[in-house]
Amino acid sequence: MATSPVRSNRPKTRGAVFDLIRAARSISRVELAASSGLTPPTISGLVRDLMIEGLVVEAGRGVSTGGKPPTLLQLNPSARYSVGVQLERNTCVIVVIDLAGHRVARTSFRGTAQMPPEHALPFLAAQVNAILDAVAVDRGKVLGVGLVSYGPQDRHAGLLLSPQPTGEWLDYPVAPRLAEILGMPVLLDNDAAAAAIGEYWLGTVDPCSAYGCIYMATGIGGGVVVAGEVYRGSSSNSVEIGHISIDVHGDECSCGNRGCLENYAGPAAVVRQALTGPGLAEQLALDPAGTDFLHDFARIAAAANAGHPQARPLIEQSARYLGCAAVTITSLFDLDLIVLAGPSFTVAGSIYQTLIQQEVDRRTFARRAHPVRVVPSVSGPDAAAIGGAVLVLQSELTAGRTRAQDGAAPGVAEVTQSI
Amino acid sequence: MATSPVRSNRPKTRGAVFDLIRAARSISRVELAASSGLTPPTISGLVRDLMIEGLVVEAGRGVSTGGKPPTLLQLNPSARYSVGVQLERNTCVIVVIDLAGHRVARTSFRGTAQMPPEHALPFLAAQVNAILDAVAVDRGKVLGVGLVSYGPQDRHAGLLLSPQPTGEWLDYPVAPRLAEILGMPVLLDNDAAAAAIGEYWLGTVDPCSAYGCIYMATGIGGGVVVAGEVYRGSSSNSVEIGHISIDVHGDECSCGNRGCLENYAGPAAVVRQALTGPGLAEQLALDPAGTDFLHDFARIAAAANAGHPQARPLIEQSARYLGCAAVTITSLFDLDLIVLAGPSFTVAGSIYQTLIQQEVDRRTFARRAHPVRVVPSVSGPDAAAIGGAVLVLQSELTAGRTRAQDGAAPGVAEVTQSI
Repeated sequence: MATSPVRSNRPKTRGAVFDLIRAARSISRVELAASSGLTPPTISGLVRDLMIEGLVVEAGRGVSTGGKPPTLLQLNPSARYSVGVQLERNTCVIVVIDLAGHRVARTSFRGTAQMPPEHALPFLAAQVNAILDAVAVDRGKVLGVGLVSYGPQDRHAGLLLSPQPTGEWLDYPVAPRLAEILGMPVLLDNDAAAAAIGEYWLGTVDPCSAYGCIYMATGIGGGVVVAGEVYRGSSSNSVEIGHISIDVHGDECSCGNRGCLENYAGPAAVVRQALTGPGLAEQLALDPAGTDFLHDFARIAAAANAGHPQARPLIEQSARYLGCAAVTITSLFDLDLIVLAGPSFTVAGSIYQTLIQQEVDRRTFARRAHPVRVVPSVSGPDAAAIGGAVLVLQSELTAGRTRAQDGAAPGVAEVTQSI
Repeated sequence: MATSPVRSNRPKTRGAVFDLIRAARSISRVELAASSGLTPPTISGLVRDLMIEGLVVEAGRGVSTGGKPPTLLQLNPSARYSVGVQLERNTCVIVVIDLAGHRVARTSFRGTAQMPPEHALPFLAAQVNAILDAVAVDRGKVLGVGLVSYGPQDRHAGLLLSPQPTGEWLDYPVAPRLAEILGMPVLLDNDAAAAAIGEYWLGTVDPCSAYGCIYMATGIGGGVVVAGEVYRGSSSNSVEIGHISIDVHGDECSCGNRGCLENYAGPAAVVRQALTGPGLAEQLALDPAGTDFLHDFARIAAAANAGHPQARPLIEQSARYLGCAAVTITSLFDLDLIVLAGPSFTVAGSIYQTLIQQEVDRRTFARRAHPVRVVPSVSGPDAAAIGGAVLVLQSELTAGRTRAQDGAAPGVAEVTQSI
């Protein structure tokens, strides 16, 4: 937060023009001037810089408005790449995306959470190098790594302020250490905030929208984006929706709060519920020890989709609880859109979308002012990893700092492994 | 939200420099250049403009850092004024403030809520004219009126989107109508958002802070300010904390949501509770019909302060409920400060401050990242009206748009009446 209120505007302006081209997909210099409020000569100069760096290319001509048809500008997707690494309690996802935010490679594996950080991070680095080799991306065009995980975090120091998955991770400098091993810039951010900004870069939301993302994997996180910027608050530990109270008289949570959403609506809570009804546990062959509860949650979600009379109410109840929290963030942040992202929405996403939409329509305070849509993320289970990579593109490019070089597009690889 | 991402920077820069002088109270041109990141010649030019408009004056010399001691710059408090009008269900408060945000006149009265808007607004206009005459402020120096009330609102059209106090107010163009009668610009905003920004202008919060305001009068509202800007969201209907659910299984509220904070912690809820214990109702001479519940709430709060064995637990319970909501906004907006403002905190403010601080310390998710302080507003019961006037100063001056003229300061008047 401690930035001076006035900054040199040049890189910001260049970054904003780049972002307009990205958002428009295809736009003329005249349209750029109109939508940026900048003069045509300024636009021409900035576009020239962006073309010299290979970030923007001319692509055909638009419709004539009298004179000669204007030349259209587009992003050059293969000009830059970035890597997104999502560190979850149970799985790790690595993606490589191009400048347009499209995934050119993906790998996922389990087990890092069981390792201490001094073993996990060299392993992660090896995986990042392997996937970059697999798609033959020129390292000079890789802007960096976006490492995303749950909160709380010290984003600037690159530390996790949480003892999860194990106490060894608390206060461990994950981002500086990974950067050191990889020899590449690494930024740390919240997985749900990343998932939220990913939607913006991919152009699936109105650039002026104030929208929220509910991210459900092992836990439940949230992110809010206003006019293309992640809402940060005091220390970037915002929108911790999984640990807001939906029941002031509820049980105490390990976080210190009481009646936390996660303990009512999260996968572990749903599985716990399911195990209390032995009939269901046997029919769906759930693990009574609940060790692999994400796997069991997926079985319950699948049964709910199929209309199973005991499974369906469990998922519907989880959706109603999420709906209560969705109403809270909508009424507090005045959102016009809520995006549902993360692996735990994959199977029964349509049930969640329908019921959360119902709750928001019925209960949001400012529903007279404007409607609020509830939609699934375009990136689904990989939303956080893709968002992490997008945060690198956004911080490197729309802030106006770029590297030189340009070249051919790499192939697309898909790797999935388990350790 | 639909503004172009890049705007001409000149007025913004001038506004930012003005805001730095305001925040610093006394600052040299050299210090301005350092903290703004602008060049000394740019600063000199902008300061010259601000002095020509009479907004800024030279005031003595600072400490020498080798050469000749630098000339210090300060705001000229009597250069401009603005009016704040708070329209509440039960009372109306009008204040006149100077450029420094200091109150130079105040009047309050009851009864407007019982009038239809076509009678209430001409009456309000007459009161505004009367108070401006009473303090003999040059009309040319009055930048406008900030009309603040509860939400939801259409801030841009100047409409209330609420059927309170009566159905006639729903969709009534209160701001355009008042502007027409007064012949003065009138902006409409949320009372709690206004109370929040008032603290910033008065210089009682860190300019980089992300802080929230809980405003309790008849109802409970909220506002969040990040680095000196009110958080707006999609339509400026944000932080409606009174209508977030603290009990997912609670009763339905007239707003459509269930388990709303206001019905647990608000003055009416506390009085309702008190009336269930007849002993207390008689001892404190509460009105069984609960018609003047704000008056009865004040009696209960006073008894709680005095340690009354039945009254104290009622206020403490209200404070715990507010604490639950304070934890929610702190964990969602990642706040470092919570300001308690509004008339319903006046009597038992210290009980509320202590217990809300306890809840926040114990339950906020990111408490490892930074502490969160709970403090009373410097403007107390008038926070919303003063904040409304501040919003006028901020929108007219820190956006760089100003009027000419300057002159002597008016006297201070204090009027209180009832109709």
